[in-house]
Amino acid sequence: MIPAEATEAIRAAGRRMDLRGWVPATAGNISLRLADGRIAITRSGFHKGFIPEDGVMTVDLGGRAERSDLRPSAETGLHCGIYRRFTEAGAALHGHSVPATVLSRQSGDAIILDGYELLKAFPGLPTHDAAIHLPVLDNDQDIERLQSRVTQIWDAAPQSPPGYVIRGHGVYVWASDMPSALLRLEALEFMLACELEARRSK
Amino acid sequence: MIPAEATEAIRAAGRRMDLRGWVPATAGNISLRLADGRIAITRSGFHKGFIPEDGVMTVDLGGRAERSDLRPSAETGLHCGIYRRFTEAGAALHGHSVPATVLSRQSGDAIILDGYELLKAFPGLPTHDAAIHLPVLDNDQDIERLQSRVTQIWDAAPQSPPGYVIRGHGVYVWASDMPSALLRLEALEFMLACELEARRSK
Amino acid sequence: MIPAEATEAIRAAGRRMDLRGWVPATAGNISLRLADGRIAITRSGFHKGFIPEDGVMTVDLGGRAERSDLRPSAETGLHCGIYRRFTEAGAALHGHSVPATVLSRQSGDAIILDGYELLKAFPGLPTHDAAIHLPVLDNDQDIERLQSRVTQIWDAAPQSPPGYVIRGHGVYVWASDMPSALLRLEALEFMLACELEARRSK
Amino acid sequence: MIPAEATEAIRAAGRRMDLRGWVPATAGNISLRLADGRIAITRSGFHKGFIPEDGVMTVDLGGRAERSDLRPSAETGLHCGIYRRFTEAGAALHGHSVPATVLSRQSGDAIILDGYELLKAFPGLPTHDAAIHLPVLDNDQDIERLQSRVTQIWDAAPQSPPGYVIRGHGVYVWASDMPSALLRLEALEFMLACELEARRSK
Repeated sequence: MIPAEATEAIRAAGRRMDLRGWVPATAGNISLRLADGRIAITRSGFHKGFIPEDGVMTVDLGGRAERSDLRPSAETGLHCGIYRRFTEAGAALHGHSVPATVLSRQSGDAIILDGYELLKAFPGLPTHDAAIHLPVLDNDQDIERLQSRVTQIWDAAPQSPPGYVIRGHGVYVWASDMPSALLRLEALEFMLACELEARRSK
Repeated sequence: MIPAEATEAIRAAGRRMDLRGWVPATAGNISLRLADGRIAITRSGFHKGFIPEDGVMTVDLGGRAERSDLRPSAETGLHCGIYRRFTEAGAALHGHSVPATVLSRQSGDAIILDGYELLKAFPGLPTHDAAIHLPVLDNDQDIERLQSRVTQIWDAAPQSPPGYVIRGHGVYVWASDMPSALLRLEALEFMLACELEARRSK
Repeated sequence: MIPAEATEAIRAAGRRMDLRGWVPATAGNISLRLADGRIAITRSGFHKGFIPEDGVMTVDLGGRAERSDLRPSAETGLHCGIYRRFTEAGAALHGHSVPATVLSRQSGDAIILDGYELLKAFPGLPTHDAAIHLPVLDNDQDIERLQSRVTQIWDAAPQSPPGYVIRGHGVYVWASDMPSALLRLEALEFMLACELEARRSK
Repeated sequence: MIPAEATEAIRAAGRRMDLRGWVPATAGNISLRLADGRIAITRSGFHKGFIPEDGVMTVDLGGRAERSDLRPSAETGLHCGIYRRFTEAGAALHGHSVPATVLSRQSGDAIILDGYELLKAFPGLPTHDAAIHLPVLDNDQDIERLQSRVTQIWDAAPQSPPGYVIRGHGVYVWASDMPSALLRLEALEFMLACELEARRSK
């Protein structure tokens, strides 16, 4: 059983992300760590703006589905990688926006965000007078290999921000709970939209 | 008679497309293959975001209206061309977005989409590490002649993707059912929006 | 008295225009020719996305308010100029979009729209294979003088399209009734949005 | 106690600003001068598109919270600075849009807006044939110091417009009441969006 509040929090997050255009087609996925340690995550193949009541399933921290007849999102391994590493993480979001897609295709291994008031949305940065090095990873259909590269980045830079970008694919962010994760996603997408605008009008 | 669910599926698709800005004025059209083989398609002259209950009519595979007093969309011949060729096609959508219009006016006979995660939305492309050659055809008010050029493209490239673009006019996509066609349209429009952004900010 | 359907048609048009971002602040105005020949038009000073029930008033063809205690929109003279000239005009819309504002500030005395499928939305152009010369006039707070320049354009080019642009100010379109005027506005704004995109990405 | 209408006016303003994308994450804040002279202002840490019923608190003109257990928005000092200086100010809005953020990062100490019809939304400018010098200030987490720089600008240019921009952070506008402040914000954001477009397509 999945608590009804958990399912509804995930569905509401999907509706909000859809409103912003961040979950086109079946892109994007959403997860929540339940009180008992299981991970509730969106099932594969649905539009995240219209998640049905049975569109959420549970996996363990290793990404194994509790019910073997349900298929979790292809990127479940990345969500679990976040929850395994960061015990304080309670919710994780993968959005798929136009700015994140375009910018990541034009960037190297990081997107630098500096001077934005919204940087305050990220922990450890009390003021806007700071810079975030948002890691950008090449896309990979082998999720285990992709997660091991994410882990390498975390090992090399333990203070790296609670987010990363997969090239041509979108962003991952996490926070202690779903409202905080949504705030962080919105802050990050806002800054990416600004960066894309700035590249054009400079 | 048209089954109420078919009419409602078409009307709901129109509302969704309008929300995205893909059916300006009377542009765009929407069709569905009914169980008995007839094609339900939007009538001409209505805004597709506000299709009235009697705004859907039926034609046969040759595009002939079942009721001679109703006028089908001008592009009905293109929808029927899709249903005649692809027996698996159950729904077809013609959207008219700004990115599709602008990009197609700046392109040759194809728009190449590569490296996008959303390419997975198209059949036969299991990974993002692939490229779609989306055919671009010159606009033509002679729909029969336009359809014969579409057919030539299909004959020359049997593996061509389930979509094409008419220059300055918009995209056509199809899939087995309406939800799948909407997902495909959304994936395609997302990639076209990315392409347009990329051309500006590079 | 204003027929309730007329007021509601104007309010609904305003809500639609607001949804598209075409009536920022108190910009834009909306009018309808009543069966008795009077013109129902939005009052001055309201946001057109939230027109109150008493936000519509009547003027005669010369722009004189039926009730002297109500102030009609500053641009009432332009609406009346349309209704005086074109007896077939039943509704007129003035929208104030970002693309119309930016493009008109960068243009000479016309914006040329050609090759767009949506050109079919304009009368006398059966196909996309045509061009519209959309007149662009310098803005002027003296509405009588502005209308006399509009009249000069109409006299010089009797086949000019049912629309024009005031520089830095927005578009005017008209049609036989409100639904048709909205379709025409949407078609025009779509093409202007395409033009602006094209100038950036070329 | 805060009058229910005041709380609802602030919440409705937040919903409107969110619809336009002007209050991402916890950015933006909203205040209203109450009849008794207190300032009702959004509490810190909430998304302004979803202000809860208890998401509004009161401060005095010096920014001191009436209830010491509630934390006002970090920028409360800027709101109070407006109300102290301008006795006619009844509502103040801080929006955080992409155009304001990007433009202010690319500008010097002012953004010049000229030739826009919407300039009429600002007092003392009866026509579009005028120019506004919108002050741009460097961002500063020390709000007292930031407000003293704002005051210097007001002292140096007493006729400066009822608005300013903080670099990378967003705009402040005020007016006699909330509807008027929203109209002014919408007019300003519209012109900033036009400016950003113009820089790209010129």
